[in-house]
Amino acid sequence: MTRLSELGESHIISRVLTRNPEPAHVIVGPGDDAAVTAPEGRLVSTADMLVENEDFTRDWLDWELLGRKAAAQNLADVCAMGATPHGLLVSLAVPNDTDITDIEALYSGLFEEAERAGTALECTVPIIGGDLSSSKLIVIAITALGTVQEDSATLRSGARPGDSLYLAGTVGRAAAGLDLLFAGLRRDTAGPELRSLIDTQLAPQPDYGALRTLGTASAMIDVSDGLSLDLARVAAASGVGIDLERALLDDLVDPLLPAAEYVLDSRAKGVSGDAEGVADSANGPVMTAEDLALSWVLDGGEDHGFAASASPRQDPGVGWRRIGEIRTGHDVSLDGTPVPASGFSHFGK
Amino acid sequence: MTRLSELGESHIISRVLTRNPEPAHVIVGPGDDAAVTAPEGRLVSTADMLVENEDFTRDWLDWELLGRKAAAQNLADVCAMGATPHGLLVSLAVPNDTDITDIEALYSGLFEEAERAGTALECTVPIIGGDLSSSKLIVIAITALGTVQEDSATLRSGARPGDSLYLAGTVGRAAAGLDLLFAGLRRDTAGPELRSLIDTQLAPQPDYGALRTLGTASAMIDVSDGLSLDLARVAAASGVGIDLERALLDDLVDPLLPAAEYVLDSRAKGVSGDAEGVADSANGPVMTAEDLALSWVLDGGEDHGFAASASPRQDPGVGWRRIGEIRTGHDVSLDGTPVPASGFSHFGK
Repeated sequence: MTRLSELGESHIISRVLTRNPEPAHVIVGPGDDAAVTAPEGRLVSTADMLVENEDFTRDWLDWELLGRKAAAQNLADVCAMGATPHGLLVSLAVPNDTDITDIEALYSGLFEEAERAGTALECTVPIIGGDLSSSKLIVIAITALGTVQEDSATLRSGARPGDSLYLAGTVGRAAAGLDLLFAGLRRDTAGPELRSLIDTQLAPQPDYGALRTLGTASAMIDVSDGLSLDLARVAAASGVGIDLERALLDDLVDPLLPAAEYVLDSRAKGVSGDAEGVADSANGPVMTAEDLALSWVLDGGEDHGFAASASPRQDPGVGWRRIGEIRTGHDVSLDGTPVPASGFSHFGK
Repeated sequence: MTRLSELGESHIISRVLTRNPEPAHVIVGPGDDAAVTAPEGRLVSTADMLVENEDFTRDWLDWELLGRKAAAQNLADVCAMGATPHGLLVSLAVPNDTDITDIEALYSGLFEEAERAGTALECTVPIIGGDLSSSKLIVIAITALGTVQEDSATLRSGARPGDSLYLAGTVGRAAAGLDLLFAGLRRDTAGPELRSLIDTQLAPQPDYGALRTLGTASAMIDVSDGLSLDLARVAAASGVGIDLERALLDDLVDPLLPAAEYVLDSRAKGVSGDAEGVADSANGPVMTAEDLALSWVLDGGEDHGFAASASPRQDPGVGWRRIGEIRTGHDVSLDGTPVPASGFSHFGK
């Protein structure tokens, strides 16, 4: 074990960036006061931060998966604009007794996910800058940059009544994984089925490739805070209503039933240490496994599925499933019944 | 007092961004998955993070000054490339019992500094994105973007023997302020002279305007970690040696003598609670006030002065002072005597 405190900052940085690609659009990479790159068209930029004890705990921590997740949640935002990733800036704070191999694993996860996006979207996604500092808590703050041709960004505001609503990737799996973790299950003790849900929580895998196959989307959003909340954002930005069809959600809900049974069982036994989020609803009348699985699908973010609206006359591409339709109105409903926007929020309501 | 936990995330964001400017280059501002902007020329990007208990303590905390500092340290990096600021992405984590007015003060500091840079460089610097989350520790991670015309970025690698070395702004004042804080002095108890040094530590004011007056710099760096360390970076990148002239540093050293006397006095009385950084040298033979003041000037970063090399035939513009020269070799010296690179580093040596 070699602690960071035994190494110099520049030595650490050169070690973790060994694998950093150098595509032609990077003119000056990490090492000067700032990077210089050559974006083509419009610039798309987004930033997101993961903080220990808020977004993950030391108890579940896997450094490589943390790197994958940090990259994925930012790349998903760039890609949900219809953009091509251009580069990442990575600011990391860790305790200075952290083992260098843990930091290498974290960067390895960042590169893995950047390469996965690059392969799907035929581009190369380098780390072009960042910051390394010490802190008692682990913090990883990423800015992802992308480019899009003039006037071709896909915003939240373009959905029109009559459009169909499509989803690429999944929703609810990461929320199920989180509740399994709260119920005390861990990657190494879970069977393959439940473990894969925990893995989605620890390192979601957005379906970047699907973004190449959908024709022209009128609106798109990275579902990071849950369908109910994120679709409410699309509805508000577009001035429309959105109706989800319950029957079209079966393929998302049904695979979560074993996890829902596990979580309800463990809650019934009172072994759940920390019950957050959807667990609140356990205080109401008896909740069935289907209720819980549906609540994960409606309110669980962090799979980073992509929801897009497009003309129903257009064939959805590979990776997209229809889950509802855009209608007049201003709310989100399920088979016509209003769905409260109760996805994740850091503060208050 | 209204705690963040009583407010919704989107309400908080709209409140703190009330003052956000909307220059023409912002096509889609905060509120979608990512921002869309129109950069002209090459993109310059840099990221830096401030973490509670590492970069500041709750005991000295002034939210507005923290915002100014976070903006300044990132804008200085963009400007040290010769770039025009384009926008900031601000990721913030704070305890959820934080008063909304404190967060408003922090953003007010961000806007103040962005406006100061914008006025000096005739541009408008909006916040184009970011993230707000809860955390026990305060963390503020910023990415600053800028633009520069093709091939016109000023790198660290262009210094040539025979060039003069110039400084805009100051060095050593923030380090003096930090040692005053460690010695127990606070803004509200300090006289105006020492208080202004503490203010430089809490909210440095880079001289952005000077960047408009220097003709053609062959190399430039934002002095954030101390002249000795940052000039060693220029020396290494350019393959040159750099000699500082002691007599040319008088204007930087002399104003720090009262602070040096205060700090040495308080150390002699043993009242210094926390002695870090330059305090190590206090364990050696007797240190004079001039020794300490000079060590602040040589090893103290965080004023965010700009050091630039340029032809000596060229008149330095307003705001620039000559402090040395570029020579052959590969190290940094003071009147010919090597200066060890002992500026700030988060890890190890």
